[in-house]
Amino acid sequence: MNAMGRLVEGLALPQPYLLFLGDTTEAGYAKTAFGLVDWARDRCVAEFGVPGCTVSAGLPTMDPAAAHAAGARAIVIGVANQGGFIPVSWISALVAALEAGLDIISGMHARLEAIPELAEAAARTGRRLINIRTPPAGIPIGNGRKRSGKRLLTVGTDCALGKKYTALALHRAFVARGLAADFRASGQTGILIAGGGIPMDAVVSDFEAGAAEILSPDAAPDHWDVIEGQGSLFNPAYAAVSLGLLHGSQPDVFVVCHDPTRTHMLGLDGYALPAIEEVIDMTIRLGRRTNPAIRCGGVSLNTVALNEGAAEAVMAAERLRLGLPVADPIRGGPAFDALVDNCLA
Amino acid sequence: MNAMGRLVEGLALPQPYLLFLGDTTEAGYAKTAFGLVDWARDRCVAEFGVPGCTVSAGLPTMDPAAAHAAGARAIVIGVANQGGFIPVSWISALVAALEAGLDIISGMHARLEAIPELAEAAARTGRRLINIRTPPAGIPIGNGRKRSGKRLLTVGTDCALGKKYTALALHRAFVARGLAADFRASGQTGILIAGGGIPMDAVVSDFEAGAAEILSPDAAPDHWDVIEGQGSLFNPAYAAVSLGLLHGSQPDVFVVCHDPTRTHMLGLDGYALPAIEEVIDMTIRLGRRTNPAIRCGGVSLNTVALNEGAAEAVMAAERLRLGLPVADPIRGGPAFDALVDNCLA
Repeated sequence: MNAMGRLVEGLALPQPYLLFLGDTTEAGYAKTAFGLVDWARDRCVAEFGVPGCTVSAGLPTMDPAAAHAAGARAIVIGVANQGGFIPVSWISALVAALEAGLDIISGMHARLEAIPELAEAAARTGRRLINIRTPPAGIPIGNGRKRSGKRLLTVGTDCALGKKYTALALHRAFVARGLAADFRASGQTGILIAGGGIPMDAVVSDFEAGAAEILSPDAAPDHWDVIEGQGSLFNPAYAAVSLGLLHGSQPDVFVVCHDPTRTHMLGLDGYALPAIEEVIDMTIRLGRRTNPAIRCGGVSLNTVALNEGAAEAVMAAERLRLGLPVADPIRGGPAFDALVDNCLA
Repeated sequence: MNAMGRLVEGLALPQPYLLFLGDTTEAGYAKTAFGLVDWARDRCVAEFGVPGCTVSAGLPTMDPAAAHAAGARAIVIGVANQGGFIPVSWISALVAALEAGLDIISGMHARLEAIPELAEAAARTGRRLINIRTPPAGIPIGNGRKRSGKRLLTVGTDCALGKKYTALALHRAFVARGLAADFRASGQTGILIAGGGIPMDAVVSDFEAGAAEILSPDAAPDHWDVIEGQGSLFNPAYAAVSLGLLHGSQPDVFVVCHDPTRTHMLGLDGYALPAIEEVIDMTIRLGRRTNPAIRCGGVSLNTVALNEGAAEAVMAAERLRLGLPVADPIRGGPAFDALVDNCLA
C-alpha cells in the first residue's frame, strides 16, 4: 500500500464500540451515544457507566472485560459534560478499559494523553488513545484531479441545521436501494458513526481541500460517497471550511439543508440567513471549478419545530417556488423518496 | 490591555534586524533578504554570513555583537536552501547571535527549537526562537462584526503572481500621499517585511476568518489597512485560505493581481486561469457578505516577462475591456497613480 493508501486506511477507527456513559444523569449530555445507537447500532456492543450514571442508550450493560469478550475493540466516550473535560471519577473505568484490551476514542476538546493515568496505562498496555478532533498527519495539498465514483455533498444555509442527519439519511436510502455507498464523515459525531473520517474544521487551511480529496478517494464508477457538509459558504466565520470541503469533494450532486424557522446565522445576529436559491447558485458557481457537472439534487428542510400541517405547507411552498424536491428526512415518506430519486437521476 | 489586545500585540516581531545570509552562494536563495532590503530597509541594520558566503544584500556587514550594539534586536534567517533545513555550518553563528542578545526569526519549515543547540542556547540566554510559519495561539472564531477604518485586500487569478508586491506598493503610495496606512502581512516574507502578521495558510480552517479579523483590527476612520492576499478563490487547493481571508478582512476595496502570460493555475495543468472579470464578480459576491460596500479598485498586472511595448499594449487593452485602472506597480508611472486614485476614490 502506498503512503496515500495508508493515510486513508488510517482514518478508520477500531470497532465495534463499548459506549461509555460516565456518571451522566441528563440525557442531553449523552447525544453522542444516542446518535451512535440511532445510526450505527450494529457497531455498538454494549454500554457502560460508573456509579451514579442514570442515563441509558438502550444497549445491554457490560463492563470493559465482558464487552471485549463480546467483540468490542474500543470504548467511546459517548457523553459530554459542561466544560468538555474528563472528570476524575471516570479515570479508573477508562484505565480498566485499556487493561481489558480496548482503545479509547474521544471527541472531547481535552486530549486523552494529557491525563497522566491514561497516558501511563496506554503505554503499559500497548493500547491507543484516539482524539477524533485531531486530523491525521500527512494530509497533502489539494491537486484538483477528478476522481472516479460519484459524490453527494450536503451543504447548508448555516451551521447546525441538519447536514449530518441529511447525509446519513440519504446514505441509508441509497443502501436500501441496493447501491454501493459510503457515508463520509467530516465532523466528530459523524466520524464516530462512520467509524472514520476527517474533522475538517481542525485541518490547517492550506490543506483543507487536500483533506477533502482524501476523505472521498477514487471508487468504482457507480459507487456513491455521501459526504457530510460543514458550515456554510455564507457563514462569515466558517466559510473557509465549507469552500475547501466543496472544492475537494468535487460533488456531482449537492443537497441544501435549511431550517425554515431560522432567520439569522447562529450566534451572528447581524447576519440574515441566505435564501436557498442563493446557496444553490453559489454552490454551483464555486463547485463547478472542480466538477463542471455539479447540480442541486433538492432541499432538506429541518421541520422539527413545526407541526405536521405546517411542515407540509412549508415543504409544498418551497417545492413550488424552487422547482426541486423538498423533504424532511426525519419525516421521510414520498417526499423524501422523490428527493432520493432526483439525487440519483 | 485585554486578551485580544495582547494577541494583536503578540503579532509584532522584534526589530530592527540583522540579516543572516548563511553560506549562500546563489542570489536566488536569498530572496527573503533582498525583499527585506527592498521593502523594509529602515528596519535592517546589517547583514552577516558564515565563511563561504558570497552573496550580499548590499548592507554593511556586522557580527551579531556589533549589530546588537548598533540597535539590532533579532537575526533573521534571510536565505533558504534546498529542503528548507538549517545546516550544521550555520549553528555556531546562530548561537553567537543568541549570546549577543538577539532573538532568532525563521520562516523555514524546520522549527528552530527542534535544533538542540539552539534550544539550549535560547533557554540559557533568555532569548526567543520565533517561527513565523506558526500562527499565534488563541486565535478566535470569526464574529463578522464590522470594524472601523478602511481596508484594501489584494486578490489574484492564482498564487504567486504579485499580491504581496502589489499590496506593498499600494501601501507605499498611500503613505507617500500622507495617509495613515499599515501593510498587513499574511505570508512569511510579508510578515518579515511588516514586522508582524499572521501566516494565514497555517491557521486551522475553523479559525481562518477569525485570524483575518485580528490581522486588521479596528482603526481610525480614515486609516487604511492594505492587506496582502493569499491564493485565489479559483485555486482548487487554496481557495479556503482566500475565502477566510476575504470574509475576515471585510475589504472596502480590492485589487485583482494577474499575470497576463500565465494560462493555467500554477502546478495544476488541468485548470485554466479564471478571467479577471470572473475574479472581480466572485470577490464582490462573496466579499459583500461581510462588507456590502466592497468594490474593485482596479487591476495589477505582473508584466515582468514582457518588454515595455508589449506591457503597455496589454495594460491598455485590459483598461479598455474592463473599464478600470490597470497598472504594473513595478513599472509605476501615471497608470499606477490612476490605480491608487481609484482605490482611494
